[in-house]
Amino acid sequence: MSCRIGIDISGGDHAPEEIFKGAVLAKKEYNEEIILIGVKEEIEAQARKNKVNLKDFEIMHAPEKIDMGEAPATSVRRKKNSSIVIGAQMLKERKIDAFVSCGNTGAATAAATLIIGLIEGIERPGIGIAIPTREGVSLIIDVGANVDPKPLHLFQYGIMGSVYCELVFNKQSPTVGLLNIGEEETKGSDFVKYVHKLFAASSLNFKGNLEAKHMFSGQCDCIVADGFVGNVALKVTEGCAETMGKFLFDTIMKDPLGLLGLLLIKRSLRKFKRVLDYAEYGGAPLLGVDGVVIIGHGRSNAYAVKNAIRVAIHEVKYDLNVKIKKRVDEIYQNEDFKRLLTV
Amino acid sequence: MSCRIGIDISGGDHAPEEIFKGAVLAKKEYNEEIILIGVKEEIEAQARKNKVNLKDFEIMHAPEKIDMGEAPATSVRRKKNSSIVIGAQMLKERKIDAFVSCGNTGAATAAATLIIGLIEGIERPGIGIAIPTREGVSLIIDVGANVDPKPLHLFQYGIMGSVYCELVFNKQSPTVGLLNIGEEETKGSDFVKYVHKLFAASSLNFKGNLEAKHMFSGQCDCIVADGFVGNVALKVTEGCAETMGKFLFDTIMKDPLGLLGLLLIKRSLRKFKRVLDYAEYGGAPLLGVDGVVIIGHGRSNAYAVKNAIRVAIHEVKYDLNVKIKKRVDEIYQNEDFKRLLTV
Repeated sequence: MSCRIGIDISGGDHAPEEIFKGAVLAKKEYNEEIILIGVKEEIEAQARKNKVNLKDFEIMHAPEKIDMGEAPATSVRRKKNSSIVIGAQMLKERKIDAFVSCGNTGAATAAATLIIGLIEGIERPGIGIAIPTREGVSLIIDVGANVDPKPLHLFQYGIMGSVYCELVFNKQSPTVGLLNIGEEETKGSDFVKYVHKLFAASSLNFKGNLEAKHMFSGQCDCIVADGFVGNVALKVTEGCAETMGKFLFDTIMKDPLGLLGLLLIKRSLRKFKRVLDYAEYGGAPLLGVDGVVIIGHGRSNAYAVKNAIRVAIHEVKYDLNVKIKKRVDEIYQNEDFKRLLTV
Repeated sequence: MSCRIGIDISGGDHAPEEIFKGAVLAKKEYNEEIILIGVKEEIEAQARKNKVNLKDFEIMHAPEKIDMGEAPATSVRRKKNSSIVIGAQMLKERKIDAFVSCGNTGAATAAATLIIGLIEGIERPGIGIAIPTREGVSLIIDVGANVDPKPLHLFQYGIMGSVYCELVFNKQSPTVGLLNIGEEETKGSDFVKYVHKLFAASSLNFKGNLEAKHMFSGQCDCIVADGFVGNVALKVTEGCAETMGKFLFDTIMKDPLGLLGLLLIKRSLRKFKRVLDYAEYGGAPLLGVDGVVIIGHGRSNAYAVKNAIRVAIHEVKYDLNVKIKKRVDEIYQNEDFKRLLTV
């Protein structure tokens, strides 16, 4: 059975054109039903410009737009006809199986929470991102859905993230680590020390604290972080990679033999760049929402949009949320764990 | 006039040998008075092994050691004869002008706070680290002295950091930025939003939020962060640089022309590595303490120890703390700012 993916045509730095083109690419490659949610006239203009036959798509007119800088909760409350609010509404009513947006992350999170609602037992959604490691891939959650979390929220990220790693990354009994400034359990802020206790008392395959410098080591399949810290960790990586690239380039160019060397490794550098661009090329699941919501990077181009749609299609087929719900129930029924929560 | 630098011979992953050798290098290069604080027998054994004449040094016997994993406050209270406690005590009594330790950072911070005390008007010390940027160098403070800070502590880091940038980096009216997940002042946790208000109301040259991905851009001279977040940002950089290096190497090695290319850029790569190792090669000032305390990286080798001693010598000559005290007074006397604090 084919699935129905709604895509927010109005959201993203390069909307509507790159989003539209990404949706067209996805239609060609995956042949699922794609619903374009955005300003009808803009979608039609894009179709003309890019010589695309709109018969292959459904259009859902959403005249309003939520800009990248708008306050999330307020904009969701006020702009009922925005692509983000309409997309969330359609998902709520099961008119689509998944919603993909590269727009205002906070607004997408707020709309998902307020309109679609959360899985029973989950109190806040978290954004997970797959990061490349020496061993393959790890998931870091949360990277910014919730910047004022409580310890229990982080614990719930761990549950959701480990189910995700099991199903999507196909890992048996995935390991969970807590992003921290040292490995010993006495390390870190009072906040993370308490989160550590919750994990240690649970039946998850908890490996303890993961020092930030080992984030890319593959030591843990699922890395749990406060949304503020996780976002900083991710963004610093982006900045570091960029700066390092420029530094290296400058250094090489000052060396007479450097330019020749650079030409010889050019192909490798290009491959390498693709690995580094992980944050941009692939959608990030907003876990905890009672429906599949995929957040794309604001800078997404058509290729990235296509990938985000692919992630959405996969997730619909995995039946992730049913399994998250089951795992939450199992863990919360454990008597030791219950006692810890009532203290 | 020469200055007297106390160095903790017992602290660090490669103590005592690398620390001892670093002290010897520093003596040769800077010819200031170096006081070796550590286990007398171990220092003498090192002198024999490395054929060093101990006449050039003073030795302060400190029979106890605080290990890297020990709980900071407890170890400082219990181990009165440890190199860290004795070093702090000597600085307090002005028997040395600066104290350098590559040992347990938490213990060094606790000893400095409890024994030496803080500059009037400063409530918590913060560790500042100079990071390489496209424009030259920035200071990020705090990178781990205080992982449960209050908003006012971050504001005080901004005062200290900007004085540091002015004196040590020789920057006129240094810019101050707040490490955050977005640029708009509405971004981030409730905590950083409040810190933003404090900075905005002050007379510092505050540039607003600095997105984590611009940490290495040189946009701000002084980058202020919560010690937990700052430490994660720093450590992620370390890990990212390492992983990226390996990824790149692997990719290049799979390409037939790659190896030749690699040989040609080898010299550049070596230069580049030196830039990346900033965290290891240079001591980090523990700002806010009423005396000069320099924290070296735990992994410090002799060369890094020598550099940390150089940083200590410089700081003694800058009279930094007198200037920090003066700046704190100026800012706190401003009526608008006073009002904000009493709300």
